[in-house]
Order: sequence, then C-alpha cells, then structure tokens
Amino acid sequence: MALTLEELKEKARLLRIHSMRATTAAGSGHPTSCLSAAEIMAAVFFHAMKFDPKNANAVEGDRFVLSKGHAAPVLYAAQAEAGMYPVSRVMTLRQFASELEGHPTPRIPGVDAATGSLGQGLSVGAGLALGARFQNSNARTYVLLGDGEMAEGQVWEAAAFAAHQKLENLTAIVDVNALGQSGRTMYQHHMEVYRAKFEANGWAAEVIDGHDLATVVAALGRAQAARGRPQAILARTLKGNGISFLADKEGWHGKPLSKDELERALAELGPAPAIAPDAGHSYERAKLPAPPEFPAPPAPEYKLGQMVATREAYGAALKRIAAVHPKLVAIDGDVKNSTFSEILEKAMPERLFQSYIAEQNMVSVAAGLAAQGLVPFAATFACFLARAYDQVRMAGISRANINLCGSHCGVSIGEDGPSQMALEDLAMFRAIPNACVFYPSDAVSTERLVETMARTNAICYLRTTRPKTPVLYANDEKFPVPGFKILRESASDSATIVGAGVTLHEALKAYEQLKAKGIAARVIDLYCLKPMDGAALGAQVRATGGRLVIAEDHYPEGGVGEAVLAALAAVGIAPGIVRHLAVNGVPHSGKPDELLEAFGISARHIAAAVETIS
Amino acid sequence: MALTLEELKEKARLLRIHSMRATTAAGSGHPTSCLSAAEIMAAVFFHAMKFDPKNANAVEGDRFVLSKGHAAPVLYAAQAEAGMYPVSRVMTLRQFASELEGHPTPRIPGVDAATGSLGQGLSVGAGLALGARFQNSNARTYVLLGDGEMAEGQVWEAAAFAAHQKLENLTAIVDVNALGQSGRTMYQHHMEVYRAKFEANGWAAEVIDGHDLATVVAALGRAQAARGRPQAILARTLKGNGISFLADKEGWHGKPLSKDELERALAELGPAPAIAPDAGHSYERAKLPAPPEFPAPPAPEYKLGQMVATREAYGAALKRIAAVHPKLVAIDGDVKNSTFSEILEKAMPERLFQSYIAEQNMVSVAAGLAAQGLVPFAATFACFLARAYDQVRMAGISRANINLCGSHCGVSIGEDGPSQMALEDLAMFRAIPNACVFYPSDAVSTERLVETMARTNAICYLRTTRPKTPVLYANDEKFPVPGFKILRESASDSATIVGAGVTLHEALKAYEQLKAKGIAARVIDLYCLKPMDGAALGAQVRATGGRLVIAEDHYPEGGVGEAVLAALAAVGIAPGIVRHLAVNGVPHSGKPDELLEAFGISARHIAAAVETIS
Repeated sequence: MALTLEELKEKARLLRIHSMRATTAAGSGHPTSCLSAAEIMAAVFFHAMKFDPKNANAVEGDRFVLSKGHAAPVLYAAQAEAGMYPVSRVMTLRQFASELEGHPTPRIPGVDAATGSLGQGLSVGAGLALGARFQNSNARTYVLLGDGEMAEGQVWEAAAFAAHQKLENLTAIVDVNALGQSGRTMYQHHMEVYRAKFEANGWAAEVIDGHDLATVVAALGRAQAARGRPQAILARTLKGNGISFLADKEGWHGKPLSKDELERALAELGPAPAIAPDAGHSYERAKLPAPPEFPAPPAPEYKLGQMVATREAYGAALKRIAAVHPKLVAIDGDVKNSTFSEILEKAMPERLFQSYIAEQNMVSVAAGLAAQGLVPFAATFACFLARAYDQVRMAGISRANINLCGSHCGVSIGEDGPSQMALEDLAMFRAIPNACVFYPSDAVSTERLVETMARTNAICYLRTTRPKTPVLYANDEKFPVPGFKILRESASDSATIVGAGVTLHEALKAYEQLKAKGIAARVIDLYCLKPMDGAALGAQVRATGGRLVIAEDHYPEGGVGEAVLAALAAVGIAPGIVRHLAVNGVPHSGKPDELLEAFGISARHIAAAVETIS
Repeated sequence: MALTLEELKEKARLLRIHSMRATTAAGSGHPTSCLSAAEIMAAVFFHAMKFDPKNANAVEGDRFVLSKGHAAPVLYAAQAEAGMYPVSRVMTLRQFASELEGHPTPRIPGVDAATGSLGQGLSVGAGLALGARFQNSNARTYVLLGDGEMAEGQVWEAAAFAAHQKLENLTAIVDVNALGQSGRTMYQHHMEVYRAKFEANGWAAEVIDGHDLATVVAALGRAQAARGRPQAILARTLKGNGISFLADKEGWHGKPLSKDELERALAELGPAPAIAPDAGHSYERAKLPAPPEFPAPPAPEYKLGQMVATREAYGAALKRIAAVHPKLVAIDGDVKNSTFSEILEKAMPERLFQSYIAEQNMVSVAAGLAAQGLVPFAATFACFLARAYDQVRMAGISRANINLCGSHCGVSIGEDGPSQMALEDLAMFRAIPNACVFYPSDAVSTERLVETMARTNAICYLRTTRPKTPVLYANDEKFPVPGFKILRESASDSATIVGAGVTLHEALKAYEQLKAKGIAARVIDLYCLKPMDGAALGAQVRATGGRLVIAEDHYPEGGVGEAVLAALAAVGIAPGIVRHLAVNGVPHSGKPDELLEAFGISARHIAAAVETIS
C-alpha cells in the first residue's frame, strides 16, 4: 500500500485511538505499550509490508510477529485498518467470546505464533524467514520487539542464528521505550548498547527516532535493500507517546485509561472516528497449518532381535520419510551425532538446520517453520528440551505442528550422570494440551511413530533411548494412536506389567524370571502415553486381577505411572494393587545396568514387585 | 600459591595426563575438552585463586565454576593437585561408587552447582560473586566456559546482569577451542566476535593465547586489578591441545583414548607419575549449605474473611521474615509489582536483586546465592518459570536451597489469556526430586508456608493466585508438611472434595450449594502437594465411601489430581469413584469467573460432580 507520509501519520493516530479505546472498553490491557509503537506499526503495516489481508499467512506474503505480545491492541488496530476485520471488532478485545485475546494467538489471521511470553518472537521470525527462503519465497518477515524483552537470552540466540543463516529477509524493530513493567529498563535510552549488541551478532543495525514517521519509513527502506544479513532498527520511543499525561510516565504499564482519562487523551489526538456496534461475527481462522499428505515411504528393514538404538531408528526414519516428503526438515542443537539427525543431513544436507547449543531458539524456529507449512523435527538430548519448555508451552498455545525428539532419556544413559539424564520430560510433554507423547521400545515402532508424527496435526514428542535394544516387531507392524501392544499374555496371568523403552526390555526379562518360577505375567508395551485408551488398558489390568506393575525410567511424578493411573481413573477403573517403580531421588553416574538396579527399575525389581502382589 | 611459570607448566602437563588417564580408565568422557583448558586451569587454580582446599566452599574464599561441565576430569585433576583428594581418586571417575561423576555436582567440595547442561555457569558465578559482595567478602569467582555454550542465551543474560551489577569480582574465561560436539562452532576462532559481544554487554574483555601460560597469568592479573565491571578472558585454544593426533581434530568429542592411544599420548608428554591404587575413601562433602536458623517472626495480622491475594501475602511474608532473617534475599524478573516482591524491596531495598526479564539467569543466580549461604526467594509469573525449567532441574541435581514463587497461576488470571496462565507449573515442580510444592489458598497459609520455605533444606515452590480470596485461617494456624486441612466435614459426607487455591474457594461454594440440596461433602485444602501423606488423605476418601472429586486450576497432567491418585496408590488405597476436574485444552481470554465455568472447575461443576457420584 503506497500511502503518503500524511496518510501514514493518520494511520498512526488511528492506531493510538483504537488501542486506547479497546483497552478502556476491556478494562485491562497495555495501552501505553501500544502508543510507543504507533508510528512503527503504521510504517510496517501500511508502507513496508506486502501481504494479502485475505490470505495473511501465505508463504508468498510478508509476515509480522509481535514479539512484545502485550501490545496486542495496536496489532489488532493495524489489522483492522488493513481491512482484515472491522474496527468494531477491536473493541471486543479480551472478551470471552472474542478471538482478539489479551495477547495474540494464531486463532486470528496474520498471527503465526502466540506471543506474550517475551523474547520468543525473533526466533519465530527467523523460522518464518528461513521457511520462506527454503520454499523459494522472497517474502520478508518483520518482528517488533520491546526493549524489556531484550534481557531474554533467547533474543540473542535468535540474533546469532539469523545472522549465521544470513537471513537478509528478516527485519527486527525494537521499540525502545525505556520503561518495563516495574521500572526503567536496564539500558533505558542508551541506544548504542543495543546497536553494539546487534552488530556484535552480525546484524546491520541503526538507531532512529521511532516517532518520526519519515525516519521509520526510510529505515525500513534501507532494511529491505540490505543484503547478506538481517537488519535491526532500534527505535527510540516513549511509552505512552502522543498523550501528554502518559508519555514516559512510570506507573502506567498494563493499565487502561478510565473513561475520563480516555476522553482527555482522545481530545489531544483530534477527531476520533465513530465506530459502529460490532456485529459479533468471529474472524477466527478457518484452519491452521496442518501437515501435508505424503505417500507411504518404503517399510524399514530390520530383523527381529537385531540390536538397534531407538535414537538411531529416529534418524533412519527421518531419512526414509524425507525421501517422499519434501516439506520435512530437521533442526539440530549440535548433537546430531547423538540424536542421529545426522543420518538425514548426510543424505540431504539442505534439510537440516543447525541451531547450535540454543534449544530455546531451536524450538521457536521450528514453530516458525511449521507456520510456513513445513514439517519440522527438532532433536536434542531429552533433558535439554527442559531448556525450551516455555517455548514448547507457547507452541502448544499456538497449536504449532512441531515435532520434537528427546534422546538419552533416563538413568539408562549411564556414566554421563544426572545432568544428561531426562527424568522429567514425560511430565513436561504430557502437560501440553493436545500433544502426543510417544515412547517406543524398538526400532520398528520408532520408525512407524516418526511417520505418525509427520502426519499428525499436533505437537508430537518422541522419547528415544541411548543404549541399543532388540527389535521386537515385524517391519509391517502398525502402531495406532492411542494404543499399546500386549507382548506376553496367558489366561493365568497374575499381574499386568507396563513398561516402555528400557523398562519394557527389563519387563520382558522379568517375565522370563517369573516364568521360571511358574508365575505368569502380562507384559504391555505402552508406546503411546498421550492420548491413552484407559478402557482398553483397564481391561488388561482387570484380566490380571487388578494387579498392576508399572516400571519407568523417569521420576515418579507425571510420567508413565501417573498417566496410567489417571487414564484408569478417568474410565472408572480402580486397580486393586499397584506397584509403581520409578527413579526416586537424584541419580548419579554409573553403568546403565548398575543404575537400573540401584534405582529399582531392573528386571529383578519388576519380577519382585509381581511376586509380592501375586 | 605462588608457583613459578615452570611449576605452572608442570601442573598443566599433569592435568593433561590425569584427564586422559581418568577418561581412558572410565571408558567414557571428554579428554580433548580437558586438554584445551589445561593451561587455563593451571593458572586459575595454582596462580590466581585464593582458597582453602580444606574449606573450598567458604564465603571468604575464591570460587570456581566449571560451566563446561563435560571437562570435569580436568577440574578433578586440579582439585587433586591442590590437595583436596589424591590423584588416585580421579581415576575412579564415572564409577558407580565414586563421587567424581561424569559432570561435576556439589557432592564434592569446591563445586557449588551441578553443571553439564551448558550455559548456566556464568549465572551461577554471578550469584556467587553477588552473594560474596552482599556478605562483605572480597572473594572472587572464576567461571570457565566453553565456546560451544556461548550459543546459549542464558550466557548473555548473565553477562548483562553481571555488568549491570558491576561485579568486578567476577572473571569469565572462555576456552575457545572452536570445536563443538558435532562439528565446528558457529564462530570458530573468530575471537573478535566474542570480544565484541562481551564489550557490548559492558565487560572488560581481552583475547589471549590460551596455551601460553605467561599470557594467561598476566591476563588473570589484569582481571584482578579491574574495577567496576566483570572481566572476560577469551582464550584461543585447540581442542586436544598437547597431543599431536588429537589437537584440533574433529571426531574426538566425548571420546576416551584407547589404551594404545593413551600410551602414545603420554609418550608425547614426558614422564607420567606413578599413581597408587585408590583407597576407596569417599571425598563426598559432609554437608551442603542448609538454611540457617532464625527466630520466629511476628505472626501475620489478618482477619477471617478479609480479601487478600495470596501473591500479596507472599510479599508481606518476605518483609516480615526478612526483619528477623538477615540472610533472606529476593530476586525479581521485572514483575515485582505483580508478584509483590516489591513489598520487601520498599522496606529493605538492598535485599532485592533485579534480574530484569531473564528468568533463566534469575534461577541460576539464586542457586549461586544459595551456595553462598543466603536464602534466596525468586519470583515471577508461574508460567514464566517454565522458561527456567532446565535451571530448576539443575538446581535439583545441585540440591540447591532455592525458593521459587510463581504468581498468576491458572485460568483465574482472566483477560490476559493463556500465555500468562501457568497450567503446567505443578507438573514441572513435582517432577523435581526432593522438592516441596506448596499451593496455599489464603493469606495466612501463604505467610506460614513462606516461613516454612525459608527453613526447609530443599527446593521449595510456592504457587500463588492473582485474584483476592478470603482469609480462611486464624493467624496462629500451623501448616505442617506434609499436610492438608479439613475445612468441612460431617459423619454423613457423601464425597471428599479436594481443592487448592481458587478451586478450594469454589469447593467451599459448592459445599453450600450441595448443603442446600441436603448433600453433605467433605472439603479439603491440599496446601501441600509434595510431599503428600497418602495414608491420611486416603482415610478421608475412605470415610466418604471412596468417592473423590478433585478440582484444580491446572492441566489434568501432573498436577493436583495425579498427585492425589499417585499418593493413594502408593499406600494401596484405590478410590472407588474419582471425578477429576481440570483445565482441558488451551484456554483463552475472558473474565476469571467465565473461565472457571467454561473450563469446568467452578463451584457449579464441583457440585455437579459430587451429585453424579453421590
């Protein structure tokens, strides 16, 4: 849209009016955080960006990420002025029935990731820019950040990543209004600090007056012309700018104006447009990006009993599926030789993006790639996904189609010790709404579940194991979701043993030990922890007299055991006797078998648990 | 220790020998990551640091943090050469019975925080340096980082924080060996990038040859003399340095030398000392820092029924306790006016440290402060503690005495929307070994539990609520751990209702609704989620016919419901009928009451659940 400078100024004036009116109507929100960004938003939306308001999340169109998500009203105001919905809709801000929430989410068009947990937007923007380039789109991504969130380390992970990837199609604008929530920001208006930081990270960077529209427009032009590196526009602004009694005043963060204050503020801005009553029509997006269909890849080719680590099968599956799935990409955090993402990279180097040791950025970049219609698989040691739990949480709110693989779970990693052992990852991922959580025990189920992940419209988590384990299934075995496999059963089973990963193999050994003593037990491979079919599982427990032994290489809280208990309770099945074997206390270094034994999840402990309740 | 340059060179040679021997003996580990740091470690341990090897974690002594935790053997080698234990003990590296684990933990003297999840050490070091200064110690803290971990954003959070705090007693040495785990690092040997980044963050920074001992010694001297800001020594090194076939070679990360390779390597280094067989004596620390005793503070002064947000009671408790507890300090992430940490700050400004919007750094700084014997309370919105889950995980491995408060839990925050709602925090904190998890429902229990946190030798988490709730307890009420309160009971109760926080108050309303219909129910305030007394709780459930309704403002996974089910199962109590009310799916903006209703955890839903099972 080629607006004149005067027309852009009018847009900025309207954005201020809409933002203040909407927050006053809502009775909450952050009007002053919108006012500092009015000129920036006007210049980005009505001068720089090229996008179709009717198809605002297209790979061909420029994208915008509001990293400072609390300024949502100014985004909604800009979208309304761009014709995406009527201004009356902005006035439904924060209402129960409105899709215009307190912080933006992809429920509405033009938003690719939920923001509001600060410092994530630049990584999402890098993912969008990378995803555009990967798909040969010349579209640009603009990210608006606040200065408060520049304290978040993830911003600097993203800055390093974007420069390393030479994302010349990425522009960051920092609204440096110098006021945080509870006081002045660390650097206040020392603009040169921000410039030095961005330049040190390899960006083009310039400091401008963020309230001078001609200056903002010119800076955006220079950004568009820049080649070989991303660009940062550091805009000196005032929080509450444009209103005499708000500008640069402390105590106004997250506070709407009273009706009287609004009147006084509007009087300073000149004539305010009449707004018709809202028709109540929702502008929620009809559909979010979903994984594309792809043909069935060739089946894996394992032999029963072959020793293969599930982490290695993960890498093999990526390669096998990628051959028939052009949208599949992977991201690594400098552990590709441990997670086996390198199997994909060696076959198709262009499919793997290196995020180095920066897990937060890795996960948010994945969300950006998914918002461009790609199907990303990000992998690292499972314990290091804890580093990115807030990013996973926000991806959950975004309904982002990202796939995450965590290798090296549990004490079975052995000598490296507890810092490298994931013992809380199942608790983490189970508590993400609508997520799928898979925990395969052999190479075939791993490969099949990776394919399922690529087809599933949800955040999917795959937990893989470091040591090699024997192949249990034929290559054509199916692994429905929800589901589990009954590996051992008889009419006289005295208990049901539930295991997954290394503990399933311990359970199979326990089965033999028990059999030698004349005790029959049922052994279940619970490869899918979420969703879970409690009724089907409960039927097995009932068939074994209500006696249940659960063994997991995880802390007792939030993992396999609690998942099973909750699933049974939800369908009204109360197991008579439960023995829950899990890792209690902080583990330490040792040989894998020593640790399984010491922390009570070895075959011997499982067999003993069955014996005590039989 | 005033060693000559030649003596220091000999130390470096011995550190190389010990590191390679230990990893070969262990059959795993990271010898080449030790070799690049040999001169740095020799200079730090045997020239720069002033500490008592018999009391290596004293507030008066210099401290050392090995942020690149995988180089543990070179730390153990240095500690052994410093006389903390015999060199023979280093050869027990990674064994099940050894306290010298694959990555360092505070089990051993001279280690203040577990490392091995990269990028956390500089924050811990900043906490140690801050904690020393707060206690008028002139001691210095040295942190050794690897270049791979410089990609972690937390390093830059720590860098900004340390400079802002003017921590002139903090020196970072970066071992830039240019090789990561799976390939070359992002910046390889472009040393000026690191210098520019540190300088942009306000540090003194210089680039040196990390294998020239005289240069390293001189740089450490300049660092000690620097005033007003922390110092970064950027040491250009080679991974595997000192051994011809290892130096700067890819493919050697995390790989011990074979016995033959070790022979060849040792031959290059000259005579290797004889090492006596290890006596098997453990050098585990006799005790870790524990919270000091303090006199009972005056009781709070609330009136029954008074409306007070538990988050506000948290701040009031900090102030009340701090008056009698000189070691209590608080850390904020720019939300002190929301978490009410500001109540403490207004009374005692020197007790609150501002970490700005950088939760990872906030938590690791807290771990550093705790390692200096202080009792830190760090608070932010509960959802943003997800940003620091890996740091909490590592604090758990460290057995760090940190206290965390998460405000604004659940959908009851209302209009701000899901990005600001913590709905997985209980799952997170329950899955930390030995942690205590508290979820008070009124101001009195909040204040009492904050005092309990200050006295408890464990990671403690307190979940506070945004809206005001009525005071339920007399000011002298006690809240034992584990424990719960029975607020309503009769001989004819048809079900037990368990609530906490906002759902407890909904449960009390449901009680009245049910009573009007002639249905009696038991109402339990489950203020302590971990540890939990399953037998005592189970007795209540049994007394109400095994009928149990649990309501929580949290996702269904890993929270109150699963905690209760697991605690009951652990003592062999199977509730007959369970109704678990929790927040299913991603919530959105709305008024708190609308959301409690829409997501099924309001009084009406609780009463209906009791009715359906009565």
